[in-house]
Amino acid sequence: MQPRNTYLIAPDPEAPALSRMVVGVDQTGAEVSQPVVEERPLTIFLNGQEIVTAMTIGDYPEYLAVGFLANQRMLGEDETVTGVDFDAESEAIVVRTDGLSNYEDKLAKKTRTSGCAVGTVFGDMMEGLDKVRLPKTEVQLSWLRTLSKTINTTPSLYLHTGAIHGTVLCEQDRPLVYMEDVGRHNAVDKVAGWMRTEGVTGDDKILYTTGRLTSEMVIKTALMGIPVLVSRSGFTAWGVEIAQKVGLTVVGRMRGERFVCLAGADRLVWDD
Amino acid sequence: MQPRNTYLIAPDPEAPALSRMVVGVDQTGAEVSQPVVEERPLTIFLNGQEIVTAMTIGDYPEYLAVGFLANQRMLGEDETVTGVDFDAESEAIVVRTDGLSNYEDKLAKKTRTSGCAVGTVFGDMMEGLDKVRLPKTEVQLSWLRTLSKTINTTPSLYLHTGAIHGTVLCEQDRPLVYMEDVGRHNAVDKVAGWMRTEGVTGDDKILYTTGRLTSEMVIKTALMGIPVLVSRSGFTAWGVEIAQKVGLTVVGRMRGERFVCLAGADRLVWDD
Repeated sequence: MQPRNTYLIAPDPEAPALSRMVVGVDQTGAEVSQPVVEERPLTIFLNGQEIVTAMTIGDYPEYLAVGFLANQRMLGEDETVTGVDFDAESEAIVVRTDGLSNYEDKLAKKTRTSGCAVGTVFGDMMEGLDKVRLPKTEVQLSWLRTLSKTINTTPSLYLHTGAIHGTVLCEQDRPLVYMEDVGRHNAVDKVAGWMRTEGVTGDDKILYTTGRLTSEMVIKTALMGIPVLVSRSGFTAWGVEIAQKVGLTVVGRMRGERFVCLAGADRLVWDD
Repeated sequence: MQPRNTYLIAPDPEAPALSRMVVGVDQTGAEVSQPVVEERPLTIFLNGQEIVTAMTIGDYPEYLAVGFLANQRMLGEDETVTGVDFDAESEAIVVRTDGLSNYEDKLAKKTRTSGCAVGTVFGDMMEGLDKVRLPKTEVQLSWLRTLSKTINTTPSLYLHTGAIHGTVLCEQDRPLVYMEDVGRHNAVDKVAGWMRTEGVTGDDKILYTTGRLTSEMVIKTALMGIPVLVSRSGFTAWGVEIAQKVGLTVVGRMRGERFVCLAGADRLVWDD
């Protein structure tokens, strides 16, 4: 068994491809050198179909593509991914599956009346929620405090450059996979892609995010089968409403000892 | 003339439609009542064409729709908006223009090969940049300090509920229009919609945002004809690159007396 607080995947703030130094001036007019995070387009294809262009820092493109398609319900749970081909030069990635995705038919029909797939996709995500059954896994408060402290002191692009979001898949008080990205939901999609690729289920996991607890974040967490979502940021009303409906525990504004839980408080165990 | 520091449009944190109280528990297990911002879908149509569903707090839907379409270059500068019809019940808004938008043809062609308009739209935004000529307007540092202080102490949904972004159109040291939204770029689109509707140009303005200085934020600011973009948050490398290319001044990490300027520092005047 691995020791606690040892990541399977940790951020790599020193990776030269993920940030660069930019020279500017500060408030005194003095020249300063500032580390700045990269941001580049990645076009995701599902078999023959171009799906979306995401803005990403560029690490783990395979997990990002698979996780995005899974979270958008374009990749069914019963479908097998037969290959993922990333081409750095054309900034494109193709996810191949066995047989034609049902989504490709749907998309062909719907795009005739809808300019952008966003509405459609959101509808499909909401549909998927009906099937979600989240287990009554207990969450000890001491775990949340340990996680929060460990994650916030882990060397990361966030600490190095700022302007980036992080999502961490955790088990009890141990952070397992810590993904970062400049794109709003890419970090959570990368975690989803890792889980799908490694065959890891969410029922005994906790998801920690630096971002806000919006409807989309809550939906993605539920679709990943993870019963607990924790953030240092705040909530939106629809995010809370959906969490209450699907029985997801949402803990927000987690800073130091303090937090607020606005749904699923029955999972919390006051162990200290 | 209006006195300085008087908004034309200021946030309305007390508006009952924009937030609600949600009951939960805090870290001690005590019941707490937490103000939480609303988040609802708004589907934007351009004439007969459904364009996108945006997640928004719901205020100023007309400005959001017009500004979104203008910033995405779906609404040409020479086109006239003949009407904007908002229907609260169906959460839809229709922007009508004289004659058929060139974008509608383009969209019909491109969606056959592209599942989502995102890539297309981004390409169109980049194309628009070639025509942008930003004036050499001077920016006094004392203005930035006054703006930052005024904006950060203005009663807002951000101070009331958190989990929201703000964008403020400013002239010298005076904030004019302060828009907030839960959606990433809705706040800036609402400002763009106000400018277009009121016939206000950007050449003598400063745009302040609470969000990060990403490529999309930089492109939108340049397309709005505003030469200076200021943020309390950080930068992405591509955001800085585009700002340098189009000659936009970007000032980031603005907190108290401190900031970093990574493009267009020649506009800054050290007046104190």
